[in-house]
Amino acid sequence: MKKLRTVMDFCIRHQKILGYSTVSLLTAASEYIFSSVVFKCPCNSSNIMYGCTFLIAPAFVLFLLGYMTNARVWLLVTGRCSSKNQCSCDSRGHFLNVLWSVTASALVAPFTWIAVALLSASFYVCAASGSSAFKKLVCKDFEEYCNKSLKIPCDEELSKKIGELHSLEAQSQIAGWLLIAIIMTVALITTCLSYCSSPVSYLQMKFWKTYSKKEQEVLEIKAKDHAAKLAERNVHFFFEPADPAPFWTPSNEDWQKIS
Amino acid sequence: MKKLRTVMDFCIRHQKILGYSTVSLLTAASEYIFSSVVFKCPCNSSNIMYGCTFLIAPAFVLFLLGYMTNARVWLLVTGRCSSKNQCSCDSRGHFLNVLWSVTASALVAPFTWIAVALLSASFYVCAASGSSAFKKLVCKDFEEYCNKSLKIPCDEELSKKIGELHSLEAQSQIAGWLLIAIIMTVALITTCLSYCSSPVSYLQMKFWKTYSKKEQEVLEIKAKDHAAKLAERNVHFFFEPADPAPFWTPSNEDWQKIS
Amino acid sequence: MKKLRTVMDFCIRHQKILGYSTVSLLTAASEYIFSSVVFKCPCNSSNIMYGCTFLIAPAFVLFLLGYMTNARVWLLVTGRCSSKNQCSCDSRGHFLNVLWSVTASALVAPFTWIAVALLSASFYVCAASGSSAFKKLVCKDFEEYCNKSLKIPCDEELSKKIGELHSLEAQSQIAGWLLIAIIMTVALITTCLSYCSSPVSYLQMKFWKTYSKKEQEVLEIKAKDHAAKLAERNVHFFFEPADPAPFWTPSNEDWQKIS
Repeated sequence: MKKLRTVMDFCIRHQKILGYSTVSLLTAASEYIFSSVVFKCPCNSSNIMYGCTFLIAPAFVLFLLGYMTNARVWLLVTGRCSSKNQCSCDSRGHFLNVLWSVTASALVAPFTWIAVALLSASFYVCAASGSSAFKKLVCKDFEEYCNKSLKIPCDEELSKKIGELHSLEAQSQIAGWLLIAIIMTVALITTCLSYCSSPVSYLQMKFWKTYSKKEQEVLEIKAKDHAAKLAERNVHFFFEPADPAPFWTPSNEDWQKIS
Repeated sequence: MKKLRTVMDFCIRHQKILGYSTVSLLTAASEYIFSSVVFKCPCNSSNIMYGCTFLIAPAFVLFLLGYMTNARVWLLVTGRCSSKNQCSCDSRGHFLNVLWSVTASALVAPFTWIAVALLSASFYVCAASGSSAFKKLVCKDFEEYCNKSLKIPCDEELSKKIGELHSLEAQSQIAGWLLIAIIMTVALITTCLSYCSSPVSYLQMKFWKTYSKKEQEVLEIKAKDHAAKLAERNVHFFFEPADPAPFWTPSNEDWQKIS
Repeated sequence: MKKLRTVMDFCIRHQKILGYSTVSLLTAASEYIFSSVVFKCPCNSSNIMYGCTFLIAPAFVLFLLGYMTNARVWLLVTGRCSSKNQCSCDSRGHFLNVLWSVTASALVAPFTWIAVALLSASFYVCAASGSSAFKKLVCKDFEEYCNKSLKIPCDEELSKKIGELHSLEAQSQIAGWLLIAIIMTVALITTCLSYCSSPVSYLQMKFWKTYSKKEQEVLEIKAKDHAAKLAERNVHFFFEPADPAPFWTPSNEDWQKIS
């Protein structure tokens, strides 16, 4: 029992890292499934279009999904366009701040997709074999295969012969590693700067996070309770011919304030 | 025990996303079964009709099913056609609002069907091989196969030869990814706008949702209770030769109001 | 039961060593997976680039990851750039001290990667076969294979013939062992020096570590408790129409002091 609690504690404390790891692993697994089951390089003039679609479109979809499933986006966006709301400079700073943090977490999955796709190389090889630059390179060195550059991803023998000079797989994997390294560096630097410029200390921030999470939980429980009472009362007075007693409920302004 | 409750809590909180995911997965699975078991391209002049039927008809059926299984439609539609009901401008706005949200959730399954069908390509290949535009393309490049364009989905050898220039599978998969990307973008933007233009804050809306769900539950329990009492009384006074005591029951107008 | 506790005690006492061992083992395992599944030496002019990328890029990524997952970095960095904070000489010394210890623990994984990669040799062989120095050596001894030095990692027969004189694998493994030996020596010496120059005795330092760990635990529990109470109060007064009673919370300055 105690062991389980230790594990749970560990999970809760490292929730963010575990969440990102899970997302990354799922993305990598789905990339593997897609590249082995669905992906079949056409080996004709649409190579470049086909490869790029598989490289970019899923990443884009994952990015949008990341936005959609993040509750903070809706918390932020709700009521922002209503005319009543005066946009003060303070809230705009907060808006950009949250937007940035949401975007950062939404970018984890798409970058994982692109990085894994580059490391497994099949999408890039398909796309690059259709590029005119690659065709020129092949034509310069192997005149006899000049018109067959598009068939490289499908024809293993051809791929081996030309691969002696220009290996697309190696390019793809190098690009993948560089991408990962660059993203990690940027992520570290921005996190560092954001922490660095914060006006409160680390421990206070941690306390604040604990508080806001707790507050959310309590609010949810209380709201459910309040809603149950209100519903009970309203339905009761629907069936009973009497005027409902007044019941205090937070007004719209109160809701606006705590949001 | 605590673990189970955590899982249940998680499920309830992310009910909508889990529901959509389940629907999507079921749709994808049934698409896979259909395309591998039931679908057999006829490879004659009815190719285009056959392919389109498999692509569109199930999607349409799923769309209707989505409408049918949504209780809110019936809540909305009931009594709307009776002549007594004066349609105020306010209720029309509400009507359009609910109609739109129901349509949006009913569209999840059909779009999943079409997207998965395009990614697995077999329906599209069958339909496109029957189109006159594709026949023209084939006739231009391969004069000897001019009359065999309809047989491409059935004849693998032929498919390989012509595929060097025009791969229908690649087209289908590119179309599938584009469709998914476009739908996700539209969904994100509309959700964003609808939240954005709402007069109440996100937390209040959440409270309101909790309340209306609770109210529905309580109403159901009370109505059952009330119905039981009423039935008891009526049956009782049927067997006993006495005038039934008056018993207050909500009138038709009251029911109209709360709907 | 008692056995389990003994194991747990052992784990907690040797937490650091066990953590490093786990990290090292995971790194070694992933190195093995990468070098056997993803790594395919292109055997052309990009050999040296490809080999070096696989040798260095993952190590760099692991180094950044090590920094990111270390809470002490953020504890250190937070609020350091804010203008309020006067940087005393004392805190700068502390800053460098913590930075050094964090860097040291972040270096465990990358060095493990490089050492394992050198011992398993495939990355190094690929990179070294592309170097001009190796080509010169091959050309001097085997004139007939002068232009084939790049193909050594792919062609086993060729590798055997040339290997009689210049075995790249052996070089790689020797380098790996030397690297391990050097790092261990440096680690031992620096640990020794840091203990040696400390003003307090070993037992006192051990007590100090125990104390600060305990303090952190207690602080966390108390903070959680405090947050729960504060949240409860705030939410309560949101639903009840009354002014909230004052509630004491540590001020910003207090937080600054304990950080």
